[in-house]
Amino acid sequence: MGIALVTMSILSLAAAVVSKGEHTTLTISVIMSIIAGLCTFTTLPKLKDTFIKANLSGRDLLKPSKPLLPETLGLPTAIIYLITLFLFIPFPFINWFEGAHVLGEILSAILAIQSMILLGFADDVLDVRWRYKVWFPAIAGIPLMIFYYTNKGVTYVVMPIQLRPYVGDLVDLGPLYYVYMAMLIIFCTHSINILAGINGIEAGQSLVIGLSVIANDLLYIFNNPDRSSVEAHLFSLYFIIPFVGVTSALLWHNWFPATLFVGDTYCYFAGMTLAVVGILGHFSKTLLLFFIPQIFNFLYSCPQLFRLVECPRHRMPRIDPDTGLLKCSTVRPNDKKPMGTLGNMALKLLRALGLLKVFQYDNDGRIIECNNLTLLNLVLAYLGPMSERNTTVAILIIQTIASLLAFFIRYKLVHLYKYVQESSYSQYTSKNSDTNDVKLSSTSNKYSDGGPTPRSYLDSTVVPTLLEGLKLLATERPSDPLAYLGRFLLSRSNERQQ
Amino acid sequence: MGIALVTMSILSLAAAVVSKGEHTTLTISVIMSIIAGLCTFTTLPKLKDTFIKANLSGRDLLKPSKPLLPETLGLPTAIIYLITLFLFIPFPFINWFEGAHVLGEILSAILAIQSMILLGFADDVLDVRWRYKVWFPAIAGIPLMIFYYTNKGVTYVVMPIQLRPYVGDLVDLGPLYYVYMAMLIIFCTHSINILAGINGIEAGQSLVIGLSVIANDLLYIFNNPDRSSVEAHLFSLYFIIPFVGVTSALLWHNWFPATLFVGDTYCYFAGMTLAVVGILGHFSKTLLLFFIPQIFNFLYSCPQLFRLVECPRHRMPRIDPDTGLLKCSTVRPNDKKPMGTLGNMALKLLRALGLLKVFQYDNDGRIIECNNLTLLNLVLAYLGPMSERNTTVAILIIQTIASLLAFFIRYKLVHLYKYVQESSYSQYTSKNSDTNDVKLSSTSNKYSDGGPTPRSYLDSTVVPTLLEGLKLLATERPSDPLAYLGRFLLSRSNERQQ
Repeated sequence: MGIALVTMSILSLAAAVVSKGEHTTLTISVIMSIIAGLCTFTTLPKLKDTFIKANLSGRDLLKPSKPLLPETLGLPTAIIYLITLFLFIPFPFINWFEGAHVLGEILSAILAIQSMILLGFADDVLDVRWRYKVWFPAIAGIPLMIFYYTNKGVTYVVMPIQLRPYVGDLVDLGPLYYVYMAMLIIFCTHSINILAGINGIEAGQSLVIGLSVIANDLLYIFNNPDRSSVEAHLFSLYFIIPFVGVTSALLWHNWFPATLFVGDTYCYFAGMTLAVVGILGHFSKTLLLFFIPQIFNFLYSCPQLFRLVECPRHRMPRIDPDTGLLKCSTVRPNDKKPMGTLGNMALKLLRALGLLKVFQYDNDGRIIECNNLTLLNLVLAYLGPMSERNTTVAILIIQTIASLLAFFIRYKLVHLYKYVQESSYSQYTSKNSDTNDVKLSSTSNKYSDGGPTPRSYLDSTVVPTLLEGLKLLATERPSDPLAYLGRFLLSRSNERQQ
Repeated sequence: MGIALVTMSILSLAAAVVSKGEHTTLTISVIMSIIAGLCTFTTLPKLKDTFIKANLSGRDLLKPSKPLLPETLGLPTAIIYLITLFLFIPFPFINWFEGAHVLGEILSAILAIQSMILLGFADDVLDVRWRYKVWFPAIAGIPLMIFYYTNKGVTYVVMPIQLRPYVGDLVDLGPLYYVYMAMLIIFCTHSINILAGINGIEAGQSLVIGLSVIANDLLYIFNNPDRSSVEAHLFSLYFIIPFVGVTSALLWHNWFPATLFVGDTYCYFAGMTLAVVGILGHFSKTLLLFFIPQIFNFLYSCPQLFRLVECPRHRMPRIDPDTGLLKCSTVRPNDKKPMGTLGNMALKLLRALGLLKVFQYDNDGRIIECNNLTLLNLVLAYLGPMSERNTTVAILIIQTIASLLAFFIRYKLVHLYKYVQESSYSQYTSKNSDTNDVKLSSTSNKYSDGGPTPRSYLDSTVVPTLLEGLKLLATERPSDPLAYLGRFLLSRSNERQQ
């Protein structure tokens, strides 16, 4: 690991020397991500014994031999990711004069991700109860929301066309927007952890979502004349490319038959990274489209999670010892006590929708045995029995289909309910790259009472010219700097008037 | 813990409502620190079982009964500290228009501290080897150095008067300054961990150093007309006050007879927090004066650390089972193999300085048995046998004397080798609050080749006036903002000329 890190540092320094311009910064990010991936790939096997010795291990119950595997190998993966980001931070600033603002954004994002890694690791070691750890992501998300707050983050949401006659084009969610962010962070972080349990599924789904985010970012960057939109998506790329790098390496070792487990640390790390990228890249709604399988899995699980239907302690698929294939695990909802009305209704609805496989009815037509309510069991109920490897592949295919669907919705259907004036698009001042999302145009004061915030007002009126003037001033260093800058601004104002 | 956190959030929100101005911000920091301390105080006992169940436990070997105590309770302490800082972040920004820059500073500091907490916890769980973990603090310090770098941090050092004829008043250390920062971070972080092993000593020494830092900050704030210097020390206070809060609570439980251990997590957390405060508050040399006992302990240990003198696996003091008192542990340097020449010289020198107690000589006058080379053993060799409690008290008294000495050196002796022009003091542009430390004045271009960096040039010439103008602009919102700002700057320039 030591040698790999030194190599990484030397190569990234070498990259720094030859770096000029923004596509080079992206190239550096790609190179560093590849190195991070290789580093993860070689480091993980070496750490197995250390983790087993430290009691961080578990049995792989879906194998006939139930081998003991090291757990929480998501921790070194996450640490390598963090070091990669640390070493990468200086690059985007080489050419950005107005760096402080963006640096704050990057640091708050890293801080949120690192907070979740710390809490995830604490959970792996200390086994925190659900009722406490469900709030972990909200705590870890504080730096992000604070950053949003201190930067007078816009809390306006563009309304669908159909609603505009009633509520206006833009609606200010105010404090509710922070609640939305917190909910998004909590959902994304836990959702990876919920769709879990077979080899390669946690890292696999994260990889598919990560690649979808990259595809979405690239679509924006190459089709957009708006500078601030490009920057928001570059920001997203700088975080997601190294994530894809280390995740690929982790997936290699965690793929069937797994030689290690990723641990809650990885699930939380992955979920938080994706949430952060979506929020600060301003495409949180598109991100939620990528999470369709996770959203389905959560909603589908609800009857059991909220105890409307009997919920066994483990709802993992079962292995058939004779064939070595996985089959869905089942629940007998009326065995311990008769199911309540709500539970009955939920199961009937699911059966009517074809989302429940019933294995046994009693004479009155009541359900005696059906599959447990998770996406994994549903897939196995209809397509199984299957090998563990094929089950993972099936889920990843579903995840990929969801991403394609997301792109279709995002780029084809969006115009049905939202309309963007392409001609005025480049006037949007903050990083409003997503037509689905928060935005505040320089002319938006007609939509709200107080007009734009001081920061966005200044950004849209004087800041670009001012930065140009300051650059000139720092180069020229005239005898009367104040007068020099004043005359520069006046001359620019005159040019515009003409 | 849940209730305590909710209470803390509500109280801090209430404090936000009534906050106006900077002394109020300090008051909020104090209130939040007290709440954090109470929260730590009540939470730690509840977590003991969880930690013991998770195998995070160890025996207290210096008690006759050798009880099993939970370890790594520094982790919840550190997490409460982090949450406190997260919730506190918005307050300093309520009145600061130019927040982005300072926000970056705060975030990079928290990131460095949190990185060390994560690595410390990993060390507690995985038991990393010294040759790897010695570099942990340097990795954790990367965000801090990156921040320094991206802000074109000044790397000049003020020279002592005696050297000025040869090297000039200011010397640019360049990249060496980053090496200095890294070394400082590594030293501070490990030094708390090295002077450890008896109840209350880790948290105790950190508390004394923390209180010394507060005293130093307050001395500056109330005796200084320079605004930027005050801000640097306020920054330091915002980090150190909550640290003192949670440390007091931890010390309460860790005090003799301890009911829990603090773990490497706490030692690293404490060391890193102190280093960060010293670096970003610009008083790193004063900080090193507070670390005199740790520096002495390290230098004194060197002959054993570098194996010039035989080094037993454990150098902790021993308990006398009859009296229950501690006595120093000893080493027999010539038993396994004869000691080398360098080792002999080192021991002779220490004996000549009165820093070695020899218990047995052989007939040729060679040392057969002497105390192990740590501060703890030295204190026990001369003052012992003592109870464990009194040993801790003795070390804390030494630590306090060192702090008093530090204040004497810092405020009385400093003029012997450094001279500061008081009249030109307020002209210093960046946060140069410490006469001992890095600084760059607006006229410093006469000392260096390239002149001041663009940022410091702009800071010293146009930025204060510019910010004033921007504030006015955001309030007035005239029809031609560029011309408005230009005229404002010209009028200010005219006022100065007159």
